[in-house]
Amino acid sequence: MPGPLIKDMFITPIAITDPPLLNAAGLHAPYALRTIVELITDDGISGISEIPGNSSIDEALELSRDLLMGKDVFQLNEIRQVLTQYFGTEKASQRGDAPWDQRKLVHIFSAVEVACLDIIGKVTSRPVVDLLGGKMRDRVPFAAYLFYKYEGAGGELAFGTDPAATGWAAARQAAALDPVGIVAQAKAMCQEYGFQSVKLKGGVFEPRTEVDTMFALHDAFGPGIPLRVDPNAVWEVETAIKYGREMQHILEYLEDPVRGQENMAKVRKELNIPFATNMCTTSFEDIPRSIQLGSEDIILSDHHFWGGLRSSITLSGICETFGRGLSMHSNSHLGISLAAMVHLGAALPAVPYALDTHYPWQSDEVIVGGRIKFEEGAVSVPTGPGLGVELDREALEVLHRQYLKCGLKKRDDEIEMQKKVPGWKFKAVRW
Amino acid sequence: MPGPLIKDMFITPIAITDPPLLNAAGLHAPYALRTIVELITDDGISGISEIPGNSSIDEALELSRDLLMGKDVFQLNEIRQVLTQYFGTEKASQRGDAPWDQRKLVHIFSAVEVACLDIIGKVTSRPVVDLLGGKMRDRVPFAAYLFYKYEGAGGELAFGTDPAATGWAAARQAAALDPVGIVAQAKAMCQEYGFQSVKLKGGVFEPRTEVDTMFALHDAFGPGIPLRVDPNAVWEVETAIKYGREMQHILEYLEDPVRGQENMAKVRKELNIPFATNMCTTSFEDIPRSIQLGSEDIILSDHHFWGGLRSSITLSGICETFGRGLSMHSNSHLGISLAAMVHLGAALPAVPYALDTHYPWQSDEVIVGGRIKFEEGAVSVPTGPGLGVELDREALEVLHRQYLKCGLKKRDDEIEMQKKVPGWKFKAVRW
Repeated sequence: MPGPLIKDMFITPIAITDPPLLNAAGLHAPYALRTIVELITDDGISGISEIPGNSSIDEALELSRDLLMGKDVFQLNEIRQVLTQYFGTEKASQRGDAPWDQRKLVHIFSAVEVACLDIIGKVTSRPVVDLLGGKMRDRVPFAAYLFYKYEGAGGELAFGTDPAATGWAAARQAAALDPVGIVAQAKAMCQEYGFQSVKLKGGVFEPRTEVDTMFALHDAFGPGIPLRVDPNAVWEVETAIKYGREMQHILEYLEDPVRGQENMAKVRKELNIPFATNMCTTSFEDIPRSIQLGSEDIILSDHHFWGGLRSSITLSGICETFGRGLSMHSNSHLGISLAAMVHLGAALPAVPYALDTHYPWQSDEVIVGGRIKFEEGAVSVPTGPGLGVELDREALEVLHRQYLKCGLKKRDDEIEMQKKVPGWKFKAVRW
Repeated sequence: MPGPLIKDMFITPIAITDPPLLNAAGLHAPYALRTIVELITDDGISGISEIPGNSSIDEALELSRDLLMGKDVFQLNEIRQVLTQYFGTEKASQRGDAPWDQRKLVHIFSAVEVACLDIIGKVTSRPVVDLLGGKMRDRVPFAAYLFYKYEGAGGELAFGTDPAATGWAAARQAAALDPVGIVAQAKAMCQEYGFQSVKLKGGVFEPRTEVDTMFALHDAFGPGIPLRVDPNAVWEVETAIKYGREMQHILEYLEDPVRGQENMAKVRKELNIPFATNMCTTSFEDIPRSIQLGSEDIILSDHHFWGGLRSSITLSGICETFGRGLSMHSNSHLGISLAAMVHLGAALPAVPYALDTHYPWQSDEVIVGGRIKFEEGAVSVPTGPGLGVELDREALEVLHRQYLKCGLKKRDDEIEMQKKVPGWKFKAVRW
């Protein structure tokens, strides 16, 4: 009973407008890169996926094409084995020090698996969530993801702004370089999206400013709104203990205050607050040592980096088994990644913490119908077959041309930062 | 998009002929009990499953009927949640000391989930293995499962024999109460089924006899055949170390020599051989302590006791993450359980150790086409939709009448043993 067989594969790098957001690794470029993968079956069914864009991962995807042709989309275990055999086993250490993951195989698995699940959903007339055990909730909650930023809209405007913009589109352009700026950003974003949890991307300014920002958010939103801060692992152990103690009574969780599982475990013992990570425990290979050390309470998974949606379900089982919580990390992304996150988030047996998403910072879209709507900070689980979102081929073409024009080949926030602050260097630990 | 909804549920206890097999808990009764569950959807599709028979589990299944009616078979996460809420969370300690598991919820999850997957497979025209990520192998290997036993065919013959029987059917009736008897049993079973691994159920005689039996098997089969022995946790720590040292060079693995994770870890440190368990690490709740102590190398999972096939896939992910092996445990069973084991075994990413099965000891069958065939000790993965086996309703009726007639309501090997050895008592640790 051979199922739909993969007959074709389209790999389309795109560039999407991204404002000048600051983070520990530097500054977002005017465009964020994504890669859109489309698999076509012998009977003409299309399955799509979206992963972070990177020309060397695109090349690896290209190399995997021959391995995938003729494969039954249901044979996900075999596809994974074939890819692993071809590319060789990948070590957790290949992730790199940046806040985003640089491993190839997990990206490829994710791209191929999500597209296959999209096809399986279409073939079986079921939403992807039902291929993951079914829906535990109709809406998946997300958090407001705040960034210190320079003034600017990104894209062609770069550091410039569009004076005609209103509402969140205007607020998104504004600078936010201090507590007051971040509170204004938070208010505007929450008004537009209805988020009920708030996260600040930290690791940008010296800790005093960032802690003050969290207290400003606490004052502005009151105790009913869960707050999180993510210094992206650039704090020293002593810094994290000091400021962690100061902030712990106003935080829902503290994300990656320090670098590495050992340091995370050390600081965690000194504080009375859950720790979350997407930097120290980022692969199945990292799990045993995480359990041994107790480096975190919550894993911020990311199906792009954990090898797809089914692997993420396994991760959720591991978290449940070891009493850890699960939520999700994000990078700048469009609606295909968002839909995949929502299907996964809806299938998780335990109620997840509100997920991270960069989506409000983006304005482009590559799916039919345009931007996905949020209600009360949550996204409704698509009910159509597969992912429930379809590729807008015209939009894809526009965004691909934007990719070719912008000239970026991979994310490098350090180089972008140097355009604003000459000589700026990334430091794995800064304060 | 509501899927096939559960409209009806049939719970049929059956009794199957079982020979007088000895084990640490006593003696198999002339009949082993199983329960056959059939779910029927609103559009008339039938899904089936088989679990160990026990009247109190049957009653719990009966109680779950109302919770299941009207549920979409794809909503397995929700079904699990509803059952957990109704029955309450089950502790690992409710498993009990016997070699078989006595928890209700995991049995119910397994019964319902496998029947739902059978339906999903039929609706999507895919074998169950493809709902678990697809087939990693076409045939799943099993091990010869040897038992010390009294003479007797079981069933109506009980300790009597059928003189007309030939081949394995004759050998199966023979007594095997010493090394010579076990070697003869092994030869006959391997000749019939082609098994290429051999396991002895121990914990029956004083350890010297059982160790001698393993050496007799080693002499008879040579070093090319992996050997295992399972004293079912009734050895003292010192006994296990002493005899483990003597045997370790001829064993593939040593299964549950001692009781409890602490003792297993203690003995494991003294020996140079993999340890397997289906008694000390038997639920997700047991895993953290297993990892902490290092109580075993291989988990012998059982989808009936781990809450179904998808949970078993999660267990396999945990085993892979923590460098443990995975194989499968069995009780006396028929072809529905065997088919489910084969689908799961075929989907496991890592090649499993040859699985345990009692199947050669059974002669009844409840599926159309009769007994499943083994080739070279392996079973081919059914290729039809769902489990790929169908209920033989006449056979079901016959086996259900056999259940009513035999009067057994649950497994109690101690009472059976007392019929042969008056006053015999189960001991959790014996030697």
